[in-house]
Amino acid sequence: MTTLAGSGHPGGSFSSMELYQVLYRCARLRPHEPAWPGRDRVIVSHGHTSPGAYSALADAGFFDLEDVVAHFRQAGSIFEGHVERSVPGIEWSTGNLGQGLSAGVGATLAERLTRGGWHTYVAMSDAEQMKGQVGEARRLAAKYRLCELTAVVDLNRAQISGHTDEVMPVDVKAGFAADGWGVIECDGHDHAALYAALREARADTKRPYAVLAHTVIGHGVSFMEDDPAYHGRALTGEEYARAMAELGLDPAWLERARIRRAEPPTTRAAVRAEPVLASSAGRPRDYPAPADCRSAWGAALADLAATGPDTPMAVFDCDLMASVKTGAFAKARPDAFVECGVGEHNTAVASAAASVNGVLAFWADFGVFGLDEVYNQQRLADINHASLKLVLTHCGLDVGEDGRTHQCIDYVGALRSMFGWKVIVPADANQTDRAVRAAAQTPGCVAVAMGRSVLPPLLSADGSLAFGGDYTFSYGTIDILRPGGDEAVVLVMGTLSGAALQAVDALRAEGIAVSAAIVSCPLDLDDEAMEELAKAPVIVTVEDHSVHSGLGASVAAWLAARGLTTRLVALGVRAYASSGTPEDLFAAAGLDRSGITRAVRSAIGL
Amino acid sequence: MTTLAGSGHPGGSFSSMELYQVLYRCARLRPHEPAWPGRDRVIVSHGHTSPGAYSALADAGFFDLEDVVAHFRQAGSIFEGHVERSVPGIEWSTGNLGQGLSAGVGATLAERLTRGGWHTYVAMSDAEQMKGQVGEARRLAAKYRLCELTAVVDLNRAQISGHTDEVMPVDVKAGFAADGWGVIECDGHDHAALYAALREARADTKRPYAVLAHTVIGHGVSFMEDDPAYHGRALTGEEYARAMAELGLDPAWLERARIRRAEPPTTRAAVRAEPVLASSAGRPRDYPAPADCRSAWGAALADLAATGPDTPMAVFDCDLMASVKTGAFAKARPDAFVECGVGEHNTAVASAAASVNGVLAFWADFGVFGLDEVYNQQRLADINHASLKLVLTHCGLDVGEDGRTHQCIDYVGALRSMFGWKVIVPADANQTDRAVRAAAQTPGCVAVAMGRSVLPPLLSADGSLAFGGDYTFSYGTIDILRPGGDEAVVLVMGTLSGAALQAVDALRAEGIAVSAAIVSCPLDLDDEAMEELAKAPVIVTVEDHSVHSGLGASVAAWLAARGLTTRLVALGVRAYASSGTPEDLFAAAGLDRSGITRAVRSAIGL
Repeated sequence: MTTLAGSGHPGGSFSSMELYQVLYRCARLRPHEPAWPGRDRVIVSHGHTSPGAYSALADAGFFDLEDVVAHFRQAGSIFEGHVERSVPGIEWSTGNLGQGLSAGVGATLAERLTRGGWHTYVAMSDAEQMKGQVGEARRLAAKYRLCELTAVVDLNRAQISGHTDEVMPVDVKAGFAADGWGVIECDGHDHAALYAALREARADTKRPYAVLAHTVIGHGVSFMEDDPAYHGRALTGEEYARAMAELGLDPAWLERARIRRAEPPTTRAAVRAEPVLASSAGRPRDYPAPADCRSAWGAALADLAATGPDTPMAVFDCDLMASVKTGAFAKARPDAFVECGVGEHNTAVASAAASVNGVLAFWADFGVFGLDEVYNQQRLADINHASLKLVLTHCGLDVGEDGRTHQCIDYVGALRSMFGWKVIVPADANQTDRAVRAAAQTPGCVAVAMGRSVLPPLLSADGSLAFGGDYTFSYGTIDILRPGGDEAVVLVMGTLSGAALQAVDALRAEGIAVSAAIVSCPLDLDDEAMEELAKAPVIVTVEDHSVHSGLGASVAAWLAARGLTTRLVALGVRAYASSGTPEDLFAAAGLDRSGITRAVRSAIGL
Repeated sequence: MTTLAGSGHPGGSFSSMELYQVLYRCARLRPHEPAWPGRDRVIVSHGHTSPGAYSALADAGFFDLEDVVAHFRQAGSIFEGHVERSVPGIEWSTGNLGQGLSAGVGATLAERLTRGGWHTYVAMSDAEQMKGQVGEARRLAAKYRLCELTAVVDLNRAQISGHTDEVMPVDVKAGFAADGWGVIECDGHDHAALYAALREARADTKRPYAVLAHTVIGHGVSFMEDDPAYHGRALTGEEYARAMAELGLDPAWLERARIRRAEPPTTRAAVRAEPVLASSAGRPRDYPAPADCRSAWGAALADLAATGPDTPMAVFDCDLMASVKTGAFAKARPDAFVECGVGEHNTAVASAAASVNGVLAFWADFGVFGLDEVYNQQRLADINHASLKLVLTHCGLDVGEDGRTHQCIDYVGALRSMFGWKVIVPADANQTDRAVRAAAQTPGCVAVAMGRSVLPPLLSADGSLAFGGDYTFSYGTIDILRPGGDEAVVLVMGTLSGAALQAVDALRAEGIAVSAAIVSCPLDLDDEAMEELAKAPVIVTVEDHSVHSGLGASVAAWLAARGLTTRLVALGVRAYASSGTPEDLFAAAGLDRSGITRAVRSAIGL
């Protein structure tokens, strides 16, 4: 595979080979029904050993070996350089190290919640034991006594830059033991020893186990053995010939595969299980009085748990239950409330993995922790076609006194570069209630981002609740609450909606024709509404978000693509603010009612 | 402080109080010269205990106690809710847990490189021991036997949600020991015991130590003691009165501070030391033949080391030296080459911390690891006014066969929401050479992002090297290599520059008036050049980057702010691609020469 592709990782594939053979042959799997719900989960964390994993999967009957050999690392093929979830038998796309054990923790928690009866195995390399996230995963697994989880570590003592002891010493055994895991060591090239170790690990009903499989990189080919040079480079044609001779294999494989590479692959992408969604959204709540979006989210979550008692749900928390308002759920469904402590990287992956293993999974956290701190994990959730419902609280300058390290002013911008994530930024408690219920019924990864403060309920021009009563949240809709302004349009998102509406109402009372619309889905602007709004000569966007990457950026892209003369005046955060009350911070940033008023007047030349 | 502010973290401030008193009184510090280069570094990792740290700093003479009590958490004051580097005596802004030990590792490595003679202390909480990054920091410190580093852990067994043993059990002692640290336990409320433990820790010349200080949350106030409820909430007025009575302190403090709060603060922000920059950029290299930007970066780095042998430099690596081309530097300056293994979170913070402690610090890594995986760490580097030079390689679909988990297609978008980062995306090896040398002489955080492939040298219209010879890189300049096109303008960034120029040259040969310009600084467009270019009816942007957040987004914002009719056609990555050769991936995404040609023709209606 690697010689034909001209790149890849043969060394670790050889050291993990017996391990993969035992896992894919002995785990409870159905090669012809790879998405069978009751299957054991085998997660490959060191995704670069894809040649090894693919070979063992083919050997176990998941697909044709010649197909993967021919099409490995070829554009358009599912057989990517790092294992990808569209390959039958692959449970989680990895390649960025240190992610797999967290995915295994998520799959195991999902088994608990669904009583699915499966065991979860995570194959890992030793270099990835250097990643801190692995420690977080170990500790969560130990806390919940996840005896249905077994890690198998390919201890080949080699990584790209050399031997692990020289690059970065890690006492893998001591690390697992310190975090409360059982540890078994065995010869990783002895099928029987591996099998016995896995059986022993599964027999314990109190704690998870790590099987430390002592191996040799490049095992089986004399000149590759224990040489880290073969970690990340393919064999040349000459080396290939020598290796095949040593292995007693037919060197014609290469030429046969080269010919087949010109034909299309025959293996079809795996069909992914449909994610679990809320069967009923329940009955929306009205908030006629000022309320915070966080509490509205917490109440809607509790309603979802009550109206769908049979829906397997999980709510993940990182030591912030009281702040992120998941307490009512935790009380109602203690078994489905997963307290992960201060370990966001593991939580991100575990919750996303749970979402593709039969559980409606929520994770609520401050914006800086649930998104900024785990940006790459959320990117990988996207790549994995996960179905996580991510609730980001304390977003924007509205985080207030916690100060700049806690200011998540990029909750739209950070997800802008990912292709699958939906982002909803509700404007008040009523819209939050409906958005949360809608998100629970929406497949895929959905983030609902909100601030911290108590907000006034938004009112329509007739004085009724704009997002109460029969209002239905529909992803992508722009809500024009004050129509008909031909001098300027104010487009606002989230926390600042009340202040913006007040500013617009005051201007309208002066006879200035300004309209106002609420954008709750800044990454997907509704073309029809935008075409109507863009008839005004100027659009003023208002957001408690970096002015460079949020609502203003979306509107700019929309306008520029059409070459319209509508001018954009973007109001938003232009520098980190200090600690302080949200009111003080908004005023200093020109984002309070008077700042918005000034900006609109200036934009229309008053 | 917290009662007056109405929020904050009194519990941990009390449990850390003696620890802070001993550190700020006994470390080698000059309260009236807080930036004295030879000072011991005291880093507060559990930044929410700012009331404790600020009190002890005031007590040690760094500033007026009444000033901080009055202005804590007030908008515009430097005394933020979480410790911030503008406060005299505070070395690193924290608040997001688990960052401080890495900052301490960076400061200690900087001491080694500068022979600065200081000792580094890191105060930590026990809840943050749950963060994986702490393990990464421990292991790097142990690998380099950083005996000049001491961690002091406030083991109060409490966190926001309850006692640590219930929220997330961590065997802190076993964790430090497993990673090779010495461990000393002591009574954290006994000044003498703390002092003795710190002395013992400093005496070892072989390894770093952790002093585990056993404490009680809320220590000293009976009703707060051992009650996690006081972790994150301020005392009410009535509780305040009881507490002050128990402590034998004057309750009039509160009213005095309330009055003073209306006056401006008197403490001035700390003056930060100027970052170290390359004293000479050396002599640029010309690449007349095709070359990869990575190798050009590696060669320029080696030149910088050679031309400034007395400049304290550090180059950080995460097990990818050969791929990111830092090998020549590592050979020339082995003591300044820091091999961190697979531990990017720690590396990001340690390298940024080194950059503010007297070292010209570079970190080179794949884009997904150096930016996506550590997005929040780079955000915090920005907040800390660090001066890291970050070299991101293997960006874009150009990463090729490594596949979608390795596709960093957000190297501009991710930094767009941060206010201080500069991003440079060089277009060929010649521009890379000059950009790297310029970055080394530029204060602040600078990212240089590049792909993997060998690229043709770009030529000016006269056939000379566009970025060779006397060309000087100037941040923000747009290089118009093919001027005078009044039908369309192609703006291109980075890897695709050669293909875009070829497309433009072919169109021009047909008599179609298309101009072409290279944008190497997509976050800071040059207004003058843009005004010239935007005279064309259509601008086509081309980038190996998400089309939603890179060059196209910058141009859209520029156009929309001016209400111009110039229409934008943005070409870029619109979906994760598979594994494959860059050529195949670019062709599939319409980003090769023929795709660009088609798009330009279509944009001008041909």
